[in-house]
Amino acid sequence: MDEIPGFADIEAAAAQIAGHAVRTPLLDNAVLNDVTGREVFVKPEMLQRSGSFKFRGAYNRLSRLNAEEREQGVVAWSSGNHAQGVAAAAAMLGVRARIVMPDDAPAIKRDNTLALGGEIVGYDRYSQDRETIARELVARDGGVIVPSYDDPWIIAGQGTAGLEILNDAHAQGVHLDALLVCCGGGGLTAGCALAAAELSPDTAVYAVEPEGYDDHARSLQSGRRESADTSKSSLCDALLTPSPGKLTFAINQGLLAGALVVSEDEVRAAMRFAFRELKLVVEPGGAVALAALLSNKLPACHERVAVMLSGGNVDPDLFAEVLS
Amino acid sequence: MDEIPGFADIEAAAAQIAGHAVRTPLLDNAVLNDVTGREVFVKPEMLQRSGSFKFRGAYNRLSRLNAEEREQGVVAWSSGNHAQGVAAAAAMLGVRARIVMPDDAPAIKRDNTLALGGEIVGYDRYSQDRETIARELVARDGGVIVPSYDDPWIIAGQGTAGLEILNDAHAQGVHLDALLVCCGGGGLTAGCALAAAELSPDTAVYAVEPEGYDDHARSLQSGRRESADTSKSSLCDALLTPSPGKLTFAINQGLLAGALVVSEDEVRAAMRFAFRELKLVVEPGGAVALAALLSNKLPACHERVAVMLSGGNVDPDLFAEVLS
Repeated sequence: MDEIPGFADIEAAAAQIAGHAVRTPLLDNAVLNDVTGREVFVKPEMLQRSGSFKFRGAYNRLSRLNAEEREQGVVAWSSGNHAQGVAAAAAMLGVRARIVMPDDAPAIKRDNTLALGGEIVGYDRYSQDRETIARELVARDGGVIVPSYDDPWIIAGQGTAGLEILNDAHAQGVHLDALLVCCGGGGLTAGCALAAAELSPDTAVYAVEPEGYDDHARSLQSGRRESADTSKSSLCDALLTPSPGKLTFAINQGLLAGALVVSEDEVRAAMRFAFRELKLVVEPGGAVALAALLSNKLPACHERVAVMLSGGNVDPDLFAEVLS
Repeated sequence: MDEIPGFADIEAAAAQIAGHAVRTPLLDNAVLNDVTGREVFVKPEMLQRSGSFKFRGAYNRLSRLNAEEREQGVVAWSSGNHAQGVAAAAAMLGVRARIVMPDDAPAIKRDNTLALGGEIVGYDRYSQDRETIARELVARDGGVIVPSYDDPWIIAGQGTAGLEILNDAHAQGVHLDALLVCCGGGGLTAGCALAAAELSPDTAVYAVEPEGYDDHARSLQSGRRESADTSKSSLCDALLTPSPGKLTFAINQGLLAGALVVSEDEVRAAMRFAFRELKLVVEPGGAVALAALLSNKLPACHERVAVMLSGGNVDPDLFAEVLS
């Protein structure tokens, strides 16, 4: 594959994951329409295998390893959702998976990764570099690195979620004015933007980020890849990436309508709304796009809007605390 | 309509609610398959308008009121989910809805009913009879009573959930060995049993009840409608009906494979499983069928099983307590 994936790569990824990934539905909710004054469609990727969209890209990459690569296994770094996606895909394909994961990752993500047969290599997020650790593991024992976003197979795999949204909307006779995507490293956003560029070029695609990790928003403004201060903590553990990826930013810079930023209070309110009205369990990082919609950050001209709920791997204690 | 509805009435109800009710998907989950050792399909009716399957029957009934009846409005009794379903349907059709609801109904159900424009008439569940109160309201002010289960339109409406399960399974090339349905008064169970009897007669349909309210289980054994001791409390507020309905029992007696009973601990464990693995918010009464599956109450011969998750209207405090 060329470095920058194209629409054909997303279609190929859709064929590759068919029958292995969950074909998640496109939902609508009367209360959500009422409170926003728009026609809203929700893509519930917490229903995906491993509890987030990450399985899509992971399976698309791992299922294309050659025999020698499968023998060596894979190495990845992840705050937890890519870890579970890689571990799930690796288990299905009989491949060893080692994951470099921060020591402060949510327990549910660590436990699920282990339950899926993944091997966790812990590190301190504030003093150690996860990519260096991963490359050392590969240098020592061999194995193929599976990046969490800056990889054409991963971007194409995540893009299948956008492809499904656009196809399902089209099947319902709906033209989407906007698509809101939760954004960390930008792989899901880039994949969705590529899908929209082909299938519905006048649908405005927005990246949504949490306060403190608004590196896409600032990068889109400055025109170059800006960094986040990774010494800061955030409720949105899934979105704590240091900067947009090279590949993902090259795509997103050309295709996004903009980037929106939400506060932690807005994220918590979105999680409560999802509990109370949508009856879906959304993790903080998976709720930022909904938070942007509910806090009215989207231009009023976008009447028909799809919102990605990208994952639901949240510790029960934190979820209970958010509800209370 | 004849007193006992038939399959044609379910098909007519499906046409009647199309475009008004949510066409909920049929989901599968790898972890659920793994832990049960079966191929399991989940019908997430908490995603339905008003947060439970009850909207189906309510809309099917209310949309058939004649002009004079619409003018008079409707009166219903409900522990909360039928209330919300009736209130939602009434609001869409411009009909007044008065609901007799116990004073100890969950706050979320009361609040949602009011938010939907329903008028609540409270009563004490332990000392007053809700049907008497409803009939007095009608005698005084007029209006049409909309029973919560013992009514052919209601049964046919709820049966559309079963129709969708069987149609979606068929479209995936799956023959269901069993279908587990949460059971209070038996309307959803009867509707699903009627749908299965036509579309998949060798699918075993089971009613699932909570301990203390196992009146269907005992009625199926004795061959006559047995009563529950309604002085007892239960976590499953949606299923506290005094006995099987006349119509629903006439249907269920002939069509069910059996009834299963689950404990409160099993219900809590099912709610936690749904949170952790399915990422769905399930209320206690909506979790009994999943609880029966997870606690292995179903004969091992049923390899392909569909499970109804009938609602998700649960107070955040209770949900947080169950998670902890």
